[in-house]
Amino acid sequence: MGQPRQERAIQTRGALILAAAEVFDEYGFAGASISRILKRAGVTAGALYFHFESKEALAKAVMNAQSDTILPFLESQGLQRLVDITLVWARRLQTDPLLRAGVRLTGEQTTFGLRDSSPYQAWSQIMEECLLAARERGELQAGVEPSELAELIVEACTGMQMYAAAETCRADLSDRVVRMWRLLLPGIAVPSVVARTAVDPARALAAEEATAPVGAPGDGTG
Amino acid sequence: MGQPRQERAIQTRGALILAAAEVFDEYGFAGASISRILKRAGVTAGALYFHFESKEALAKAVMNAQSDTILPFLESQGLQRLVDITLVWARRLQTDPLLRAGVRLTGEQTTFGLRDSSPYQAWSQIMEECLLAARERGELQAGVEPSELAELIVEACTGMQMYAAAETCRADLSDRVVRMWRLLLPGIAVPSVVARTAVDPARALAAEEATAPVGAPGDGTG
Repeated sequence: MGQPRQERAIQTRGALILAAAEVFDEYGFAGASISRILKRAGVTAGALYFHFESKEALAKAVMNAQSDTILPFLESQGLQRLVDITLVWARRLQTDPLLRAGVRLTGEQTTFGLRDSSPYQAWSQIMEECLLAARERGELQAGVEPSELAELIVEACTGMQMYAAAETCRADLSDRVVRMWRLLLPGIAVPSVVARTAVDPARALAAEEATAPVGAPGDGTG
Repeated sequence: MGQPRQERAIQTRGALILAAAEVFDEYGFAGASISRILKRAGVTAGALYFHFESKEALAKAVMNAQSDTILPFLESQGLQRLVDITLVWARRLQTDPLLRAGVRLTGEQTTFGLRDSSPYQAWSQIMEECLLAARERGELQAGVEPSELAELIVEACTGMQMYAAAETCRADLSDRVVRMWRLLLPGIAVPSVVARTAVDPARALAAEEATAPVGAPGDGTG
């Protein structure tokens, strides 16, 4: 009995996070009502409060699920992996409600009284791991500190999606990512790596097509 | 008669923007009531609606006053001027309610139904002018496009203050600015300029002390 019940609980939790993301994405934190989330998820209030003690807790879970929407699509290593993370992120931010809600809530959190830097830290850590691998592989210029560069890229991407949201509803977000790498790479990578690192938005599409799991978050847009 | 009346109108408009900034800074857009802004500014509703047709219009004026809080403190040129803008910005964002409200409203604008990229564009243009001057002076590496680099720096600063707000209430914002320049400069400036460009938070303090006008926005904090 134990195992199936646990599996059901995991499924219910996942369905709640996805439904909450869709509602947060559409209405923002203030406009997202618990009853709307329950209806969307098709679960009872009891099930929701078993997993999440409040709307804030649900928002935190959505904020911290961002990387789950990107990492499954990646196969590259080192600096190319970091570039690919930003390319896939720019693409999926247009289509994936879980990622879009996570980004929206992270930016809006102060308006609903939260101050949680864990989504920023989670991205910094993922990017730092790519850069530590890049350093191992001899890809970085001397003096480039992986933890510092990781935070700068998180900062630039955060501001980039806000600028793009205000200017073009994010239609030019991939172009902005490409531009960032064109300006950053020569100062941080050794010349041979600058030359061979591919910074092409088409990589994001190819990555999705090669690795998209059945029933991935992006499928539930409509 | 005409001249004094016009001067009074300009003063009233300035007082309204400053009062609105203080109230937006404290309560956010949703929590800022017109009556609270009127009380803080010490003007009548008629005077307010003579200058601004709505709370949204007042918010836009605050969003677009950001650079007024920084440019008066600058005397340097070229790339050093751009570095100084970011250092003064990081410092004044902790103390100047007009700048802080402008930044807050720009980030929160989608939550109150605005989509205005003009604050981002205004900063990009100011930074691009510094970079065009830097290029004239032979400070930039070949292939660095001033308009592209300007937008990247606006994006990085935007994300930086959000990350710092969530992590340290912006206490480490100046350190993040310094780190950005340490990572960016070697890839964008010629070596002699990298060597002589000063990236020190103390420059912001010195600039304020040297040039602070009497009755500057920062004086009205309390």
